[in-house]
Amino acid sequence: MSVTFRAAVLTELNQPLSIETVEAPALAAGQVLVKLAYSGVCHSQLMEARGGRGPDRYLPHMMGHEGSGVVVEIGAGVTKVARGDRVILGWIKGQGADTQGVRYASGERIINAGAVTTFNEYAVAAENRLTPLPAGLPMDAAVLFGCALPVGAGIVINIAKPQPGSTLAVFGLGGIGLAALMACKLFACKQVIAVDVEAAKLKMATEFGATTVIDASRTDPVEEIRKLTGGIGVDIAIESAGLTRVIEQAFDATRRFGGLCVFASHPRSGEKIALDPFELICGKRILGTWGGDAKPERDIALLAGLYRDGKLPLDAMFARRYTLDEINEALDDLEHRRSVRPLIEIDPSLR
Amino acid sequence: MSVTFRAAVLTELNQPLSIETVEAPALAAGQVLVKLAYSGVCHSQLMEARGGRGPDRYLPHMMGHEGSGVVVEIGAGVTKVARGDRVILGWIKGQGADTQGVRYASGERIINAGAVTTFNEYAVAAENRLTPLPAGLPMDAAVLFGCALPVGAGIVINIAKPQPGSTLAVFGLGGIGLAALMACKLFACKQVIAVDVEAAKLKMATEFGATTVIDASRTDPVEEIRKLTGGIGVDIAIESAGLTRVIEQAFDATRRFGGLCVFASHPRSGEKIALDPFELICGKRILGTWGGDAKPERDIALLAGLYRDGKLPLDAMFARRYTLDEINEALDDLEHRRSVRPLIEIDPSLR
Repeated sequence: MSVTFRAAVLTELNQPLSIETVEAPALAAGQVLVKLAYSGVCHSQLMEARGGRGPDRYLPHMMGHEGSGVVVEIGAGVTKVARGDRVILGWIKGQGADTQGVRYASGERIINAGAVTTFNEYAVAAENRLTPLPAGLPMDAAVLFGCALPVGAGIVINIAKPQPGSTLAVFGLGGIGLAALMACKLFACKQVIAVDVEAAKLKMATEFGATTVIDASRTDPVEEIRKLTGGIGVDIAIESAGLTRVIEQAFDATRRFGGLCVFASHPRSGEKIALDPFELICGKRILGTWGGDAKPERDIALLAGLYRDGKLPLDAMFARRYTLDEINEALDDLEHRRSVRPLIEIDPSLR
Repeated sequence: MSVTFRAAVLTELNQPLSIETVEAPALAAGQVLVKLAYSGVCHSQLMEARGGRGPDRYLPHMMGHEGSGVVVEIGAGVTKVARGDRVILGWIKGQGADTQGVRYASGERIINAGAVTTFNEYAVAAENRLTPLPAGLPMDAAVLFGCALPVGAGIVINIAKPQPGSTLAVFGLGGIGLAALMACKLFACKQVIAVDVEAAKLKMATEFGATTVIDASRTDPVEEIRKLTGGIGVDIAIESAGLTRVIEQAFDATRRFGGLCVFASHPRSGEKIALDPFELICGKRILGTWGGDAKPERDIALLAGLYRDGKLPLDAMFARRYTLDEINEALDDLEHRRSVRPLIEIDPSLR
């Protein structure tokens, strides 16, 4: 089966994506053709489009790494999903075949793509980037289970592992930061401090379980956290603001002797963080993480359970919905902080 | 019993120590009076004398934190050592009473001291800073068991934990670096790379078990290590050069996805290290350590066993011996790299 469809394509760094008609190649073994219902827009995709990752040897290429959709066709050897299955698409590798990138055709041009893309009406995806949609999860909220939720919650559940009575701070309330806050509900933390520069996000953080919020545009968050923790800093600081300066603040706000700073940010290529080695000698720890050590099958099931129990108020994260044609507006709104997590409605008739 | 004796005193930062006659206070519970045989001189003591730790509110004070001697008297409650016991003095806390600093008298002046000092003929030491001398260990080599050996070997044994086939690099071949090299003999490492800027130390490193040495004054050690490891870097990098720039090099020479950089350096107050957060996101880890997680009783016994088996050629580390009156010369020689580990002979008649 050959399928032709519309896709957002990045042709030049720092330029808007263009909507082009592309043709999917025949499925290779381990690949799955998915018709997209929704896509999320993650900050790391914005970073990539804006050239923050340095030179891009894959141009022109398709984008997007969290979505939901329905399986149209499966390649040889695929057993994890079947035709007609509703699935979550995400960039984190799970079980199943790990296939290479895909080459779509747009007339004479080749359009590159990774093993999963979601700013497009259809996608040829690797089996291991798909997870069957858990019961009770609507297709729109499901996109968050492809990236923000498993990563943000994974940082808390798999890496930070709060103890009863832990003090914790989350810096940067994008999708990952808010997901981390939600996951804190699973633990009996003593303090959950949310830090951002936007009043709207801080308000959302309170609804998501933060015990205290700090507006870093008005006050020094490190000093404020020291005050809130009797001068010693938090047991766990989670950073997801995407800025080296905020990684440094999160590190500074972490207590010595066993405190842990975990950052999920992937700042601009070439930017460094400056740390006081004495703080590391004093037993303060810092870890970077890419995917929160998430295991999609396990963590999506766990998080879907929380959603069904009403503990994940995800709808609050979608301030605005966009069509695929509005993809550049969605990226702009994310860049200028007008939307926490833009939701792209590709084919909302898929349920 | 009141005892009066000669001690090296730091009265002003960045000035030579002065030899003064001081009087010990009566022993408090948990304290032990020790007559010193030998003291080592550690780089961190040099740093302290030179003002590298910032303002010093304890001036004037005594110094030195690794030595050997004989117990003269014990305070109430002390059970770990008895009068006449030969002991190792070290700054790492072990079992026994943890007592506070000591105030000696020099005429009308009060001379401060920590819970152990060794640039002096006698010391009032906390029980937990003493370890009975293991059989077969001479009093001179014993000083290294108070700091350099448990810290350097501890970094390898307790923190880095090489696997069979691990690749490992040690940056900075002072007492701690050489001790780390020696400890590598306990593990079936594939490569043990030693890095320094001095030919004499690199020669010593080869005797201590390094499989390759790199002279960082002639070549870029990070590039060289990449070449030696098929482009990926070492599994474990240990830094003990005392310089932020070298901590950064050690981090850069560590491989992604599970590689570990451990630094023991305690650089000048206020100096920071600059790290690429992307490397941390890619699973490269960095840890600071103060004492190599050493447990003096356990680790000294283990290391003494290696010494008796002829696996620790410690004498090679003492290029020159000094009297207590030559303490400033010893510090200068350490500062200007004329001696790896100056040995102060305080009363070599104690055996």
